[in-house]
Amino acid sequence: MTDTNQPTVESSQEEEGTQEITPWTVSSTKGINYDKLIDQFGSTKIHQDLIDRFERLTKKKAHHFLKRGIFFSHREFKEILDCYEQGRGPSSGSLHFGHLVPFIFTKYLQEVFNVPLVIQMTNDEKFLWKDITLEESIHYTVENVKDIIALGFDIEKTFIFSNLDYIQYLYPNVVKIGKCVTLNQVKGIFGFGDSDSCGKFAFPPIQAAPSFPDSFPHIFGKYGDQIKSIRCLIPCAIDQDPYFRMTRDVASRLGYQKPSLIHSKFFPALQGHNTKMSASDQNSAVYLSDTPQQVKDKVTKHAFSGGRDTKEEQEKFGANLAVDVPYEYLTYFLEDDDVLSNIAEKYSTGKMLTSEVKSYLINIMNQMNQQHQQARSMVTNDIVKAFMSIRQLNY
Amino acid sequence: MTDTNQPTVESSQEEEGTQEITPWTVSSTKGINYDKLIDQFGSTKIHQDLIDRFERLTKKKAHHFLKRGIFFSHREFKEILDCYEQGRGPSSGSLHFGHLVPFIFTKYLQEVFNVPLVIQMTNDEKFLWKDITLEESIHYTVENVKDIIALGFDIEKTFIFSNLDYIQYLYPNVVKIGKCVTLNQVKGIFGFGDSDSCGKFAFPPIQAAPSFPDSFPHIFGKYGDQIKSIRCLIPCAIDQDPYFRMTRDVASRLGYQKPSLIHSKFFPALQGHNTKMSASDQNSAVYLSDTPQQVKDKVTKHAFSGGRDTKEEQEKFGANLAVDVPYEYLTYFLEDDDVLSNIAEKYSTGKMLTSEVKSYLINIMNQMNQQHQQARSMVTNDIVKAFMSIRQLNY
Repeated sequence: MTDTNQPTVESSQEEEGTQEITPWTVSSTKGINYDKLIDQFGSTKIHQDLIDRFERLTKKKAHHFLKRGIFFSHREFKEILDCYEQGRGPSSGSLHFGHLVPFIFTKYLQEVFNVPLVIQMTNDEKFLWKDITLEESIHYTVENVKDIIALGFDIEKTFIFSNLDYIQYLYPNVVKIGKCVTLNQVKGIFGFGDSDSCGKFAFPPIQAAPSFPDSFPHIFGKYGDQIKSIRCLIPCAIDQDPYFRMTRDVASRLGYQKPSLIHSKFFPALQGHNTKMSASDQNSAVYLSDTPQQVKDKVTKHAFSGGRDTKEEQEKFGANLAVDVPYEYLTYFLEDDDVLSNIAEKYSTGKMLTSEVKSYLINIMNQMNQQHQQARSMVTNDIVKAFMSIRQLNY
Repeated sequence: MTDTNQPTVESSQEEEGTQEITPWTVSSTKGINYDKLIDQFGSTKIHQDLIDRFERLTKKKAHHFLKRGIFFSHREFKEILDCYEQGRGPSSGSLHFGHLVPFIFTKYLQEVFNVPLVIQMTNDEKFLWKDITLEESIHYTVENVKDIIALGFDIEKTFIFSNLDYIQYLYPNVVKIGKCVTLNQVKGIFGFGDSDSCGKFAFPPIQAAPSFPDSFPHIFGKYGDQIKSIRCLIPCAIDQDPYFRMTRDVASRLGYQKPSLIHSKFFPALQGHNTKMSASDQNSAVYLSDTPQQVKDKVTKHAFSGGRDTKEEQEKFGANLAVDVPYEYLTYFLEDDDVLSNIAEKYSTGKMLTSEVKSYLINIMNQMNQQHQQARSMVTNDIVKAFMSIRQLNY
C-alpha cells in the first residue's frame, strides 16, 4: 500500500534512458524528458506566444514560473484566456496536495484572474496509498493547510476542503463519474492492478469531482442553470495529469466544460534532477520548517553542483548549469530576471564559484523560510476553520 | 449498467437444474435449492433448536417467518443470542432496500431484542446499477422510506439514512475498508469484471460500513472506547450475503465484531418459484399501492396455482402445495398456524378449490394493503425527515 509498489503507466527505454511518471512515482535514469512527456500525455507545450497573449490580456507580468518553463505544459489554457478576454473569468480549480510550487503559482493565477479558488486536500488518498493511519492523515491535513494559508491566499475568494470533511458535497458527482468510467479505463489510465485495494479504484472519481462546479453549491449555486458552463483551471505538477485526462473524458458526457490544465515540471531533489523531492528522505529537500542552520547544511552538503571539482577548474571551465541544483532552485525563487541571468553568466563562465551561488541560495531560502514561518505562526486553528468552512465566497 | 448484465457469482448445473444467485440476479431453472445455497455460501441452516432457544431466551413467540423457514439461514445469530442472554443487546444493523419481508421481520426483531435499528437506503447503488438518473434514485428513496416507516418502526429507536445523505459519516470506515480489500477479492466475491464501472467497485465498502458501530457516533458514541465491541445483526435476503461475507472478513482486521446475519428466502413472483419479484414486470408482483381490484386481478389471473385443471380433478387429487404460489403467500401473511394448516390440509386433499384459496389470499392482501396505505398516508415529509435526522436514539 505504499508508493513504491505502484505499477507504471508511462515508461520507455530509449537511448536517452528510462522514465516512469505516474501520480505516485516519478523516476528517470537520465533526467526527465519533458517534451517526451508532453508527447506521451498528449498535452500541449506552453510557447512564448501563449505567454505573450496572457500578458497582453491580463495586463499583468507573466509569472517567472511561466517565463522560465517551470509551468511548461497545458490543456485548454487557451480557452481560459478566451473566456477571460470575453469577460468571463475561470474558476481556479482543485489542486493536488503536496508541493508548494503549484500553490505559489495558483495564488498568482487567482490574483491575475480575480477568481474563486478551491483547494482539495486529498487526505483519503494519502491514507489509501501510504502506510499511515487515517488519524495521522487527518492530522497532516491541518498542518498542510496552515502552510498553504501562510502563502497568502485571499480568504474572501478561497475555499479549502479535505475529502474526508467535504465528501457529502462531492458524492453526487463521485457516483455520476464512477458510473461513467469502466474498470478497464481506470486500469489503462492509472495502471492499477487486481492486487491493488478497491479503495484505490474508488479514488479517481473523488479526485475528479471538484473539477465540476456544482460540487460547490455554496460558491457557484448562484449561477443556477448556468452552473455547468463555468470553466475550471487546474494548476498541477505533470504527474497528476492522468486524473484530469479521465475527468476531461467524463466532463462532456456529463454536460460539463472540460477542466483546463496548466502543468509544472518537478521541483528537483537536492541530489539532482532524476526525481522529485521525497518526504521520506529528510536530506532530499529543504523544508519550510527547517532552521537557518539546517537550510545552510542541506544546501552546502547535499545540493548537487554543476561546478568543477577545484577552484582552478571552475575558473577555467565554468559550471554546467543544466545539472546544477542550486542554480535551478534560484530559477524558482529568485524572481529578478536580470540578477538571475547575471549569476548564470558568471557561474557558467567561471567568474563565480559554487560556494557563492549556494550562499546566495541559502540567503534567499532562509529569507523565504523566515517569512513563511512568521506567516504560518499567525495561522491559528480558527483561521484554518474559517478557510475550510462552507460559505459563500466574494468574487 | 443494468441488472441483467451482471456476471454470475454462483452457478451450477446438475440434475436439479441451474441456479444463479448474486446480489443483482436471482434465477433458477428448477426452483431454488436453498440447502445448496447454504453449502455454496458457507452459512448455517436455522434448525429448530436455535428457534427454541430464541423463544426460551426472549420469552417471545418465534415469528412465523422463522417457524416456516422463510428466514432459513444465518451467520453467528447464535452469538447474538449469547449476547442477549448475557444482557448485552445487539444493534440491529443495516438493511438492503427492496422487499418488505426483511423489514417486517426486522421490526419484529427490534421489538424482541429492544435495540436501536439503522436502515441503510442504498440510493447510490440503485443509480449505479439501474438505468435511472441520480435524481430519480433520490426521489425513490423518499417514497420507499415512507413505506418502511408505515410498517410501524419506533422513531425513538430507528435511524433511517440514505448513502447520499449520510456518506460523510460512513466515509472514514469506507476508506478503511477500501484499503483492506483488494480488487481480486471484490471480483471473487461479487463477480464484477473489467468492463464494469469503477463506481460498482467502489460500492461494496459503502454497503459494508454501517455494519461497524462507529459509523453512527450519534447513536453509539456514548460507549466511548467500548464502541467497537458492539455487535450488529443484519436481517437480509440470502442474495445480499456476499456483501457481508466481505464485511465479516474485514471486521476482525479492523478490530470490530463480525456482523451476524439472518437470511431470508426469496419472496416468489406471482408466476412461480424460479425468481424473486421484479419491479420491471408489473404483473410479477402485488404492490402495496395496488387497488383492491388490481390485487384481485393479479392474484386471480397471474398467481401460479398448484391446483388441478378442473374442479373434478382437484376434488379427486388435491393441489400440489409445493408449487402453489397463493398458498406460499399465505405462509408469509397468514399468521395463524391453525388456520394455515387447516387450509393446507383441505387444499392438498381436494376439499378446497384454488379459487377459494385465492380469494382467501386476496382478502388478506387487500386488508394489509388498506392498512398499509392508511398508515402510509399519515407519513408526512416531516416524519420522513424526523426518522432520517441525525440524532440520539433512546434505547
